[in-house]
Amino acid sequence: MPATEIEWSQTEKEIAQAAFVKAREREVNATIETVRQAANAIANADELWRLHDFLSSKRHEIDGKYDYRYPVLLLVFSQLVKEGWLCLDELQGLAPDKITKVSALSRM
Amino acid sequence: MPATEIEWSQTEKEIAQAAFVKAREREVNATIETVRQAANAIANADELWRLHDFLSSKRHEIDGKYDYRYPVLLLVFSQLVKEGWLCLDELQGLAPDKITKVSALSRM
Repeated sequence: MPATEIEWSQTEKEIAQAAFVKAREREVNATIETVRQAANAIANADELWRLHDFLSSKRHEIDGKYDYRYPVLLLVFSQLVKEGWLCLDELQGLAPDKITKVSALSRM
Repeated sequence: MPATEIEWSQTEKEIAQAAFVKAREREVNATIETVRQAANAIANADELWRLHDFLSSKRHEIDGKYDYRYPVLLLVFSQLVKEGWLCLDELQGLAPDKITKVSALSRM
């Protein structure tokens, strides 16, 4: 079945939304902590612009990765699981075939 | 006399170089302090990306402003004096007409 034809019940949408928000919050909070530590250690212009480069890259990455569209959502979740921003347990309540797919993709 | 025809003695060049470096160091250090305070207060993604926007803008501004080419240097110094990154006293040793010009431009 093509990804675009996956169906989502209302309950599944709520679980997915909560998991998505939670993962993004975790990644943003980790980024904030990294920025805080970096900022407190900056000693010169080169290090300041290195922090700017890091933020540019991270913003681009986060903007691109957190794509809440149902046809791509299982792929998004698999990446988040792979990177440690989301646990499979947090997807409990989705149809078993969805969780199986996320789990399989996250190991690829 | 057009700005491009201003002559700089070796001593003047050394004074100018030192003043330029000092001003940039001051502005970079002030930026680092601002970033440090902002980073320690960030609570969410919007504030994180606001810090990124600030850094993008400041980097662009600093890269453009610190232009060490003799034909434009008096104009650069006048802006630095105007913005408080440089004191006229720190240009002592330049020819009086140069200091007068920087002083006048800084009040425009």
